[in-house]
Amino acid sequence: MRVGVVGASGYVGGEMLRLLVTHPKVEITQVTSRQYVGEYLHRVQPALKGFTEMTFSELDYDRMTDKCDLVFTAVPHGTATEIVKALYDRGLKVIDLSADYRLHNKDAYGKWYGWEHPHPEYLEKSVFGVPELHREKIRDAKLVSCPGCMAVTSILAIAPLIKNNIIDTEHIVVDSKIGSSGAGAGSVAGTHHAMRSGVIRPYKPAKHRHTGEIEQELSEIAGKPIKVSMSPHAVDIVRGILCTNHTFLNREVTEIELWKMYREMYKDERFIRLIRDKKGLYKFPDPKFVVGSNFCDIGFDIDEDNHRLVALSASDNLMKGAAGSAIQNMNVMSGFDEMDGLRYSPLTPV
Amino acid sequence: MRVGVVGASGYVGGEMLRLLVTHPKVEITQVTSRQYVGEYLHRVQPALKGFTEMTFSELDYDRMTDKCDLVFTAVPHGTATEIVKALYDRGLKVIDLSADYRLHNKDAYGKWYGWEHPHPEYLEKSVFGVPELHREKIRDAKLVSCPGCMAVTSILAIAPLIKNNIIDTEHIVVDSKIGSSGAGAGSVAGTHHAMRSGVIRPYKPAKHRHTGEIEQELSEIAGKPIKVSMSPHAVDIVRGILCTNHTFLNREVTEIELWKMYREMYKDERFIRLIRDKKGLYKFPDPKFVVGSNFCDIGFDIDEDNHRLVALSASDNLMKGAAGSAIQNMNVMSGFDEMDGLRYSPLTPV
Amino acid sequence: MRVGVVGASGYVGGEMLRLLVTHPKVEITQVTSRQYVGEYLHRVQPALKGFTEMTFSELDYDRMTDKCDLVFTAVPHGTATEIVKALYDRGLKVIDLSADYRLHNKDAYGKWYGWEHPHPEYLEKSVFGVPELHREKIRDAKLVSCPGCMAVTSILAIAPLIKNNIIDTEHIVVDSKIGSSGAGAGSVAGTHHAMRSGVIRPYKPAKHRHTGEIEQELSEIAGKPIKVSMSPHAVDIVRGILCTNHTFLNREVTEIELWKMYREMYKDERFIRLIRDKKGLYKFPDPKFVVGSNFCDIGFDIDEDNHRLVALSASDNLMKGAAGSAIQNMNVMSGFDEMDGLRYSPLTPV
Amino acid sequence: MRVGVVGASGYVGGEMLRLLVTHPKVEITQVTSRQYVGEYLHRVQPALKGFTEMTFSELDYDRMTDKCDLVFTAVPHGTATEIVKALYDRGLKVIDLSADYRLHNKDAYGKWYGWEHPHPEYLEKSVFGVPELHREKIRDAKLVSCPGCMAVTSILAIAPLIKNNIIDTEHIVVDSKIGSSGAGAGSVAGTHHAMRSGVIRPYKPAKHRHTGEIEQELSEIAGKPIKVSMSPHAVDIVRGILCTNHTFLNREVTEIELWKMYREMYKDERFIRLIRDKKGLYKFPDPKFVVGSNFCDIGFDIDEDNHRLVALSASDNLMKGAAGSAIQNMNVMSGFDEMDGLRYSPLTPV
Repeated sequence: MRVGVVGASGYVGGEMLRLLVTHPKVEITQVTSRQYVGEYLHRVQPALKGFTEMTFSELDYDRMTDKCDLVFTAVPHGTATEIVKALYDRGLKVIDLSADYRLHNKDAYGKWYGWEHPHPEYLEKSVFGVPELHREKIRDAKLVSCPGCMAVTSILAIAPLIKNNIIDTEHIVVDSKIGSSGAGAGSVAGTHHAMRSGVIRPYKPAKHRHTGEIEQELSEIAGKPIKVSMSPHAVDIVRGILCTNHTFLNREVTEIELWKMYREMYKDERFIRLIRDKKGLYKFPDPKFVVGSNFCDIGFDIDEDNHRLVALSASDNLMKGAAGSAIQNMNVMSGFDEMDGLRYSPLTPV
Repeated sequence: MRVGVVGASGYVGGEMLRLLVTHPKVEITQVTSRQYVGEYLHRVQPALKGFTEMTFSELDYDRMTDKCDLVFTAVPHGTATEIVKALYDRGLKVIDLSADYRLHNKDAYGKWYGWEHPHPEYLEKSVFGVPELHREKIRDAKLVSCPGCMAVTSILAIAPLIKNNIIDTEHIVVDSKIGSSGAGAGSVAGTHHAMRSGVIRPYKPAKHRHTGEIEQELSEIAGKPIKVSMSPHAVDIVRGILCTNHTFLNREVTEIELWKMYREMYKDERFIRLIRDKKGLYKFPDPKFVVGSNFCDIGFDIDEDNHRLVALSASDNLMKGAAGSAIQNMNVMSGFDEMDGLRYSPLTPV
Repeated sequence: MRVGVVGASGYVGGEMLRLLVTHPKVEITQVTSRQYVGEYLHRVQPALKGFTEMTFSELDYDRMTDKCDLVFTAVPHGTATEIVKALYDRGLKVIDLSADYRLHNKDAYGKWYGWEHPHPEYLEKSVFGVPELHREKIRDAKLVSCPGCMAVTSILAIAPLIKNNIIDTEHIVVDSKIGSSGAGAGSVAGTHHAMRSGVIRPYKPAKHRHTGEIEQELSEIAGKPIKVSMSPHAVDIVRGILCTNHTFLNREVTEIELWKMYREMYKDERFIRLIRDKKGLYKFPDPKFVVGSNFCDIGFDIDEDNHRLVALSASDNLMKGAAGSAIQNMNVMSGFDEMDGLRYSPLTPV
Repeated sequence: MRVGVVGASGYVGGEMLRLLVTHPKVEITQVTSRQYVGEYLHRVQPALKGFTEMTFSELDYDRMTDKCDLVFTAVPHGTATEIVKALYDRGLKVIDLSADYRLHNKDAYGKWYGWEHPHPEYLEKSVFGVPELHREKIRDAKLVSCPGCMAVTSILAIAPLIKNNIIDTEHIVVDSKIGSSGAGAGSVAGTHHAMRSGVIRPYKPAKHRHTGEIEQELSEIAGKPIKVSMSPHAVDIVRGILCTNHTFLNREVTEIELWKMYREMYKDERFIRLIRDKKGLYKFPDPKFVVGSNFCDIGFDIDEDNHRLVALSASDNLMKGAAGSAIQNMNVMSGFDEMDGLRYSPLTPV
């Protein structure tokens, strides 16, 4: 299959290329970047050195339509609205890695992004790209929107709790921690190594945009509107997310029951690992042991004193949180084995 | 004033010495360590190189009584029970940095530590060493127990909310993040640099011991028992704590009202900085900008959608979270200026 | 092919397993560890979670002989001498990752390791496992000894300079920098995250053992004894090595001539990338852009003022520096494609 | 004494302010920044929060002359040439932290900086600000130029070897490693946390500008021109420098003789610590144990096989490598105790 990548100079675009160059079923035919037209990919994405001698092109819709069967768009939020529409309208399958087509509801979009979506009718065409929740729809989709990295990590941990109706849906607190590659490659005072190292920096403790996606997906499962209280924090790693999802039980639930709920929902999922051990180095989910892979690791702990259930989930924000999910979605859309191009064990220790 | 330090080979003991060697009002007369008797302090605590040629002694109660007016005990939890009692019984002023005398109630102690306290009658003699809450009692105390590092950081952020009775006390979620020096100097598989780097590692997501201290102090302020839901996480820094204290408002509160509550409680406190800015590099509390100082930085954000108030607090776990608090307590007990030996600006960037 | 791993609880053993579980041509049949007999591999090596349900066995030579065609030994230096001999004597192919069979000369062994080798006659049977230098010998070898991580990284950069006889062999200064996984998983005061973070720690600035290997290999190329001045440093990363090989030219050499020398020697090598760019993010070799792959990246700079040639080389110490080389050697010995199981692009950024 | 700081928005300027706000003998009267006129200092330099309510001013020479006795200039290289001259011409004492007045020889300046110095006659007026070498001249100086951070760290380690004429001056290899704050606060692709973390990045392996300063100072001691081969590397820490100074002995020298040479030269120096231990955590100089202090730690190892002497030196690049040296120079120029405002023990562990 011939694939293109629009906007491949950032960290997500780089990860897309890194995965695509070794994917057994695809050929990369077009890679665009406004800033680096004519430049070798590996000048901007050093990991590719030795894997390809391709250069960046300008985005030309005709050429894209001619040369590609499927296109990944990895451009900034806001920029994707037009590009995705144009590619879609030309009959290309599109997998979008921006936030522009994640929310199905234009009012929700307006609320979380602060402007009106220019093509609200396309919001409904887009499938939220989490195969664990929407595999059948993704199979037939023309437009798949990959989820936010923190959003998908939270959603996968909380979904079984909502599905089994065991938590108080008024007090869901999602405390997220994420590495520096999650913020994108933009260089500002706060992303400088000297200022970004050593931080545990809260950003948007209230009203972070990913909240909208989590609420959309959990509400769909619940069949009623659900509010989520999310607070992300930047920590001193490059890759990785941990979501600590604090929930309160609405009835007593044993550990064994919880295992059953998680197993039932995810027993056939090859990118979800349930983590809980009393011994050894890996007792609860931790991005340390996920980095470089497409896994989302999920575990939990029960705080009987407070009827609290802490659901924990860890992922690599550039893999399951972005490019890995995109490949997984492509595999589903294309009838490939879902693990094709994603058979990576975590790189440990790193 | 002549001071001694019992158990000075760990990170907290090292920080005590680091602060004491430049404190203008004290002379260090005895430093003990079971493991390193006869060894130069700077062999074990390299920061001291050039500041002292002292060596470690064995703990000898008679010599301690003879040579010291006040003693800091920085030995492991469990070990301190006897040592503190012995020193106290000989009439020495004691500032304990272990957890052994933090809880006043022996049942609470039994619950959180899993064994019976051998000298429960001393629990009541001990003052919880947070001058911002108990300055008058500390002034006259013979035994002060320094708070847990994550506990004090949380307590200072939540106390004004409890005092002003504006939060739902059934759903207080404390999500803490802490550096590797907080775990002590014990070397095990999980503290090895290769395994500890890059982690966002949940440990004890339910039932962490510091919960007991937070509940004790907040309950005292509230005048009723309060439950706290605490979950700590190890992150990839050496020093520093961020507590994200998620609370739910029981009435509408404006930002300005909140500022007033915090200002009222802490306006004369020299080690508390209120942080909230719309511009610049420092918008919310972050240990990055506290490290090396005795500050506890406090700020907040309001999530109107969910009636949630996120109170944020940051400290250096070895300073305000341990040795800095100990010095501050000593200053109060001894009638020194509370900032003596603690006039450190944060070391930024580091 | 059926392979076994002896001593798989450390970082090198873990990396061996990580690579073997996804290698297309091998089946892991035996994994031993003295400390963890009966334990699941993934309890000790969390990256393996989901990839295997194997457990650790005791080392039983009969079972090993029965179940394996080739065995990797990843036990501590000194311990390998007997194990390797025993396996070899039973007719198994052995790839040793310790230092015990790297030096061919027993006097050199005695000098660098401080004790007499118990089986010096096996030193000659062992092939130094660098396919770029000894591919033909490795093809037929029964015993291959993988090189030291810093040694191989240096050797590959300096070899073409020696081969072309362009440097003063009296003043070869190798300044190496390496991450914490290179020191092994032993937990001591100096490997604790709090003590190991932030270091640029010289260790063995003179007489580091890897010097012996570098001298052996370069001397063989030169056809005369060569002395090397090596100084390693521990830096604050987990994986990765940079060797800054400072040499002095014995005649004028242009950049283009140097390129030719490197290209000539390595043009068909798939794990060597020549790095030198005036633009972009990757101008000189840096382990940042090698981590997770089996590449050794090589580049250089010329200091005309001082007739100095700085040859730079970067590798991942657990990959090309250990387990990656071991797999590469196995591929050569077994007639597999040399890239089998090693088609990893660097994980960037991480 | 009334002091001003010109250009205080960068890392060096921030460190100047951090030290000045607690210096017992000075009052800060003017702080300028082109970019942040009118802004609170602590918006740009968060460490200052709670220490000052000053704002940034525009640079106005009349006001500067009126309000200050001494001015620190911490502006970029090239920009300082005019500013320093203007302040000097108005009779102010100036301590410059740029590179513009470090070299006394205009040809050397042209060689290393690539342009002609506009005011070469001022190069001779400037004293190279290393009190350990030029204390008497600094006492009477009107213009002191603080040394480059890597330069001073190297010079202090090598000076005694040159003075005692024990090394081959044709083969001095200085391999430096430095943290991210050394590169300044400019935000570009390569300083982004995600790209700068995990690096061991060579930059300017040949012809780095600090070479010029090292050669100037060592040549002055030697009484003959000396060439130095310097190669710096960026490593993944924020603060700190290690210089590994590889030298070759021109005669046999014992360890004891070397100690004597170092002691003789530095015995009264309060910011130089000689480090060499067979036991304990601190065997050789390491910035880990210097960070936050004004120390330059020096040690060595002898490689008899190769007649090599490895002289090691560590400093905090923002302290002894910049602002700490500036304060030390001010103290000397002003007749203060040389340790005033610099009585900081290293912050360990951090």
